[in-house]
Amino acid sequence: MAGRSPTHPSHRCISLTTDFGTQDGYVGAMKGVLLSMNPRLTIVDITHDIPPQDIRTAAFALLTAYATFPPGTIHVVVVDPDVGTTRRLIAARLGPWTFVAPDNGVLDVVRRREGLRAAVTITNTRYARRPISATFHGRDILAPAAASLSRGLPLERLGPPLTSLQPLALPLAHPTADGGQRGVILHGDHFGNLITNLTAPGASRHRGWCVHYRRRRFPLVRTYASAARNAILALVNSSGWIELAVRDGSAHRRVRARIGDPVELRPQP
Amino acid sequence: MAGRSPTHPSHRCISLTTDFGTQDGYVGAMKGVLLSMNPRLTIVDITHDIPPQDIRTAAFALLTAYATFPPGTIHVVVVDPDVGTTRRLIAARLGPWTFVAPDNGVLDVVRRREGLRAAVTITNTRYARRPISATFHGRDILAPAAASLSRGLPLERLGPPLTSLQPLALPLAHPTADGGQRGVILHGDHFGNLITNLTAPGASRHRGWCVHYRRRRFPLVRTYASAARNAILALVNSSGWIELAVRDGSAHRRVRARIGDPVELRPQP
Amino acid sequence: MAGRSPTHPSHRCISLTTDFGTQDGYVGAMKGVLLSMNPRLTIVDITHDIPPQDIRTAAFALLTAYATFPPGTIHVVVVDPDVGTTRRLIAARLGPWTFVAPDNGVLDVVRRREGLRAAVTITNTRYARRPISATFHGRDILAPAAASLSRGLPLERLGPPLTSLQPLALPLAHPTADGGQRGVILHGDHFGNLITNLTAPGASRHRGWCVHYRRRRFPLVRTYASAARNAILALVNSSGWIELAVRDGSAHRRVRARIGDPVELRPQP
Repeated sequence: MAGRSPTHPSHRCISLTTDFGTQDGYVGAMKGVLLSMNPRLTIVDITHDIPPQDIRTAAFALLTAYATFPPGTIHVVVVDPDVGTTRRLIAARLGPWTFVAPDNGVLDVVRRREGLRAAVTITNTRYARRPISATFHGRDILAPAAASLSRGLPLERLGPPLTSLQPLALPLAHPTADGGQRGVILHGDHFGNLITNLTAPGASRHRGWCVHYRRRRFPLVRTYASAARNAILALVNSSGWIELAVRDGSAHRRVRARIGDPVELRPQP
Repeated sequence: MAGRSPTHPSHRCISLTTDFGTQDGYVGAMKGVLLSMNPRLTIVDITHDIPPQDIRTAAFALLTAYATFPPGTIHVVVVDPDVGTTRRLIAARLGPWTFVAPDNGVLDVVRRREGLRAAVTITNTRYARRPISATFHGRDILAPAAASLSRGLPLERLGPPLTSLQPLALPLAHPTADGGQRGVILHGDHFGNLITNLTAPGASRHRGWCVHYRRRRFPLVRTYASAARNAILALVNSSGWIELAVRDGSAHRRVRARIGDPVELRPQP
Repeated sequence: MAGRSPTHPSHRCISLTTDFGTQDGYVGAMKGVLLSMNPRLTIVDITHDIPPQDIRTAAFALLTAYATFPPGTIHVVVVDPDVGTTRRLIAARLGPWTFVAPDNGVLDVVRRREGLRAAVTITNTRYARRPISATFHGRDILAPAAASLSRGLPLERLGPPLTSLQPLALPLAHPTADGGQRGVILHGDHFGNLITNLTAPGASRHRGWCVHYRRRRFPLVRTYASAARNAILALVNSSGWIELAVRDGSAHRRVRARIGDPVELRPQP
C-alpha cells in the first residue's frame, strides 16, 4: 500500500437496502460492480426482503439501522418502482452519512431526523456502468456512484445540487388533549411486533400509560418479560417507537392488525 | 505483512452460489473454511436460495452476476445432486474469472460466452479439509480449493487438465423466417418477471416487435414504465434477455407461466 | 498502519447467529455497531433464520459451523427469549474461539465438546452502547462486547468470572445392549434431511447397521447416491450425526417426522 494515500476506514463501508430478494443474481451483480470499482469496501446487507416497490417499508428498515453505522458510511437504497421514468436518482449527505437512492421519498424520514447537509441529482454518466440498462439502475448508476464516492469523489461531481428531497407520506402521531398521542400502526416486524408511530411519553417513558387499539387497552411496560406469556403488551422499542408485542409470540398473529390501523396512547385511568 | 508478496486485491474476492438455504449452518461452515485458509478474503453471496439440486436455476443466477465481479474473482458454485458419486469436481478459468464447481453443467452457459481458457479436475486431496465427508464436498473440497487458488496456488496443482466441461441442456432460441425468434420461458424471478431465452432483435432493440405467448401478443417496450400499470409488457432486461413483466406487479402471478412454455418474437404487424 | 500494533488477523472475524430474520433492519443495526467500533472486522452470517426464541435450533446451527472458523473468531449468538429479565449475558472461551451470547443454554453443546477455558458475565456497561434499550441487548450490549474483544480487550474486563454455563436439554443417544443406540430426531434441515442424535457406530462407520424409525428399517449407507432415487436412506452426515435422507428429495416431506420422534440404531439382522 506504500505510496497510496490512505482511505479513511469509515469510507470503506457501504450498506445495501433493496427489494431484490435473495433468490436471483441481482444483489450479487450490484456487489460485483461495487467491488470492481473499490476492492477494499466492506459491504453490509441491511435487507433485500423489502416487499417489491414498497418505499415505506424500505424507509422503515433503513431507519432501524442507518445510525449505528460509522460516520462516512454510504447507504445505498434501491427500491425503485419508477425505474426508467424521469424520476431522479440522488446522492445526499444526511448527518455524517451519505445516501444514494431514487428520489422517491425513501430518504425523507432520515432527512427529517438528520437534516440535509448537501444533495445532488446524479446526472453525470461518466461514473456509470456502460451500457446503462433501462431496468437496472441500481447496478448501472447507483452502485457506481456509491463506489466512486467511497473512493473519494466529491459529491458535486455526480451532478447538479438539489435543495429538497421528495417527501414521504409517513404519518406522524398527533398530540391529544390529555397529553397522549393519536397515531397508526406503521409496520409488522419479523417477530410479529406491531410498530406504531407513537413515541415515548416523556421522561417517565412507560409508567402510567396505555395503548388503546380496537376497544382494547394495553399497558405500557418496560420490557417483553414484564408481561405474562401470551399477554399482549405495549412498550417503547429499541428504535424509540411504541410497539404492541406478545412475549414469546406474535402480536400480529393475535390481533390481525393492518398497517394504518389507528392506535392511541392515553394516560392510565 | 512485511516480507510477504502482496496478493493482488482482486484475488481476495470469492463469490458463493449454492442451494444450501440460509436456515442451517452449512453456508457458515464453508465461509469458516475459506477464512481459516485466507483471512483476507472478501466473500460475497450470490445466492443460497437455489431450489435444491436445480442446476439450471443456479446457472441462471450465476449468469446474472458473474461478469460484474473483478477479474480474478473465484466463483464457487455448490449445487451438487450427485455428491458422493463419481461426478467430477472442477476448477476452470473462463474469461478473467475462475470457477470452482461440480462438473454438472452449471458452468456451461458461462463457458459458451467466455470460452474455456483452462480447466482441471480437482483430484489432489492435499488441499482438501480432513476428513473428507461423503456428503459435504462444498466444505471439504471446493472451499479449500478456492481458498488455495485465492492464495496463489496455480490451477494445475489441483489436478489433471480437462478439455471440455459437461454441457447443460439450456435451450437456445431459434431464428425464424421473419427475422424473429422462437424460444421458451427460462426463469421466473423474485419480482415475477418471466425471463425468456429470446434476445434483443438487433440494433433497434425494441421498436416494432412483439412477444407472442399463449395466443396473446405483448409489445416490446423500453422500460417497465412504458406500459400502463397492470398491463403485461415485454422488454429486453438488464442481462440482455427478453422478459415478460407487469409494471409494479407480477407477470408470473398474472399468466401462471411454466418454465419451458414456448414464446415467439415476431415483427409487429 | 505504521505506529499501530497489528491486530492478529483471526481476531478480525465475527460470526452472527440470530433469530432476527432478514426483513427488518435489526441485523444491519448490529453490524453497524460492530463496524463503528472496529471497521476492520470480517463479519460472517451463520444464520438469521432461527425460528423466534428457538434456542435448540440455534445451538444446532452453531454446531454445524463454529469449528470451521479461524482460531480467535468471536461467535455472537442472539436468540434471547428472556431479554429484559435477569438472565445473564456472557462471554466464554470454548476451545480457540470466543462466544458471546445470553446464558440460556445455547452454548452448552459447544462447551461439552470443547470444554470451558474461561467465562464472564457481561456486567461492565462501560463497553455498552448508550442508552441501553430494554429490548435489543444484541445491539446495545453483545455487539459492543464482541467488538471490544475483537480489538483486544481482555475477557475479564467485561465482568466477573463464571464457572459454569446454563445447560441445554439437548437429548443424547443412549447405548443399547446390542451395541446400537436409542435416540431421537433433533432437527430437519433445508434439504428435508432428518438429523438424529445417533452417531457413527464405531470404525466401520456404516456397514452392517440400520436405523429403525416407526416400524420401518433404513440401511446405513455411505452417501446419498448409494440409494435409489426416492428411497429413504440413513447415513452419517458431514457433522457426524446420523440422518435420514432421500436422494434428490425430502425425507421430511416423505415421513412427516416430528422433532423428538424416537429412532434406534441396530445391527443389520
